[in-house]
Amino acid sequence: MESFFTFLEKRVADSSSLLCIGLDPHVSDLKTPTADGARAFCLELVRKTARYAAAFKPNAAFFEQFGAAGWTVLREVIDAVHEESQRLGSLIPVILDAKRGDIASSAEAYARSAFSALGAHAITLSPYLGKDSIAPFLAVPEKGVFLLCKTSNPGASDLQDLNVAGTRPDGSRAESPLYLVVARLAQSWNTGNNIGLVVGATQPEALALARAAAPGLWFLAPGVGAQGGDLGAALNAGLRHDGKGMLLPVSRGISRAADPAAAAAKLRDEIITIKYQREHRE
Amino acid sequence: MESFFTFLEKRVADSSSLLCIGLDPHVSDLKTPTADGARAFCLELVRKTARYAAAFKPNAAFFEQFGAAGWTVLREVIDAVHEESQRLGSLIPVILDAKRGDIASSAEAYARSAFSALGAHAITLSPYLGKDSIAPFLAVPEKGVFLLCKTSNPGASDLQDLNVAGTRPDGSRAESPLYLVVARLAQSWNTGNNIGLVVGATQPEALALARAAAPGLWFLAPGVGAQGGDLGAALNAGLRHDGKGMLLPVSRGISRAADPAAAAAKLRDEIITIKYQREHRE
Repeated sequence: MESFFTFLEKRVADSSSLLCIGLDPHVSDLKTPTADGARAFCLELVRKTARYAAAFKPNAAFFEQFGAAGWTVLREVIDAVHEESQRLGSLIPVILDAKRGDIASSAEAYARSAFSALGAHAITLSPYLGKDSIAPFLAVPEKGVFLLCKTSNPGASDLQDLNVAGTRPDGSRAESPLYLVVARLAQSWNTGNNIGLVVGATQPEALALARAAAPGLWFLAPGVGAQGGDLGAALNAGLRHDGKGMLLPVSRGISRAADPAAAAAKLRDEIITIKYQREHRE
Repeated sequence: MESFFTFLEKRVADSSSLLCIGLDPHVSDLKTPTADGARAFCLELVRKTARYAAAFKPNAAFFEQFGAAGWTVLREVIDAVHEESQRLGSLIPVILDAKRGDIASSAEAYARSAFSALGAHAITLSPYLGKDSIAPFLAVPEKGVFLLCKTSNPGASDLQDLNVAGTRPDGSRAESPLYLVVARLAQSWNTGNNIGLVVGATQPEALALARAAAPGLWFLAPGVGAQGGDLGAALNAGLRHDGKGMLLPVSRGISRAADPAAAAAKLRDEIITIKYQREHRE
């Protein structure tokens, strides 16, 4: 059985892209502020940018705000990505950005919702409830999860930067920020090649520390573009030794461009250039 | 403007109850495993138990699993609670158990979804992304949030029990488990009387520590009943000095009873007895 990340790596190779195109139908960006408006917005974006997408990432919040009608549209948008995959002959993974986190039968119900009812290939989850809250998602071997690790908002420091007291193998005391503990836990839990991390691209030093703590994991690294993250600094800090391991979500930087396809192509090409320079230098 | 907890305290007084009746349409409990089956299950439970409910708590996961149809049912179930409130002449708060947690415009969209599209009065949220992820919910003064603090699942210890290094006012070093740091943060953020905590009822010692860290907050304390938590031990550990401050969610312990109304009445009466003994003793 292939895992989520084998599918993702195939798509990364097919598209020469690390772009994860965000499908975030903000009310203010829609021609009509309704679920129909959200559908039109997303379908156009999927159609125009699929060639350049290593993955698509619909954010559940912007669909949920329209109630049941929004939930229908979310399913239709994911179906549209599946259709583009068939047209291109290359499976484009859909990462549902839902940041769920619950336990036992509730976690199982969320996994059914994301993977069966909606047809997503991966989901973002909160780590706060621990490994058993993630297990029902990991139980589907070909699906993936991205655990929140270090986010790019100001409040991230409230919990994620707290210093956790621990003990080194030699018995001496050591402290690590909580997000690095999460990164190490995720690396240790990743026995099925289906766990990644969400690590903001706006703080290259944190990205580099997370990379050192979880050398093998894929990172979903938002913050390039609208949030002002520097693409080169982020890639140099976060890429794995094999030049993979990072997906760069971009939403408004592409959807609000006069020509979204051109904006996606340009970003993809910048990533290729930076990766080439990095590989050449090493 | 009244706050969520003033509404809740009125209802607690009107119903003499601290029971929060869970609306969790597990597929295995439904006559037909569909959204229609979930609707029938929940509406019957609401109708039979409203008299004894300090609050109702639908868990979003069990509705989401049915896609858009489940989302429609969730709205109908919340509407049914509003109708029971009118019939009884006493507002029964609806706490949406959604455990959401996102930032900026996504958090705003989740708040619109819970409070406007669905009509819930409060929501459960994850604290992992920090205060700004909660702010859009707190911005609606008459609505409430319950932050995940200490949960009752085995994996809770993965993050919540980690020892966070800190400094006492006198400059000496101290360590606190993460969940107590969350409890203290929540207490300090509660300037609008609209933040509570989720603290499992299965560990009375943790409940007592959380109570000491957040003396003024309401706790949503699941685990009595199906998960085996002892009602007396939980109430004695978690109630505030004023004999309020705890809601006890019960789901299957009531919904699977031969007579749910009688099961709810019995639990409410047990709570009244324990509270009476506690007040008499003090």
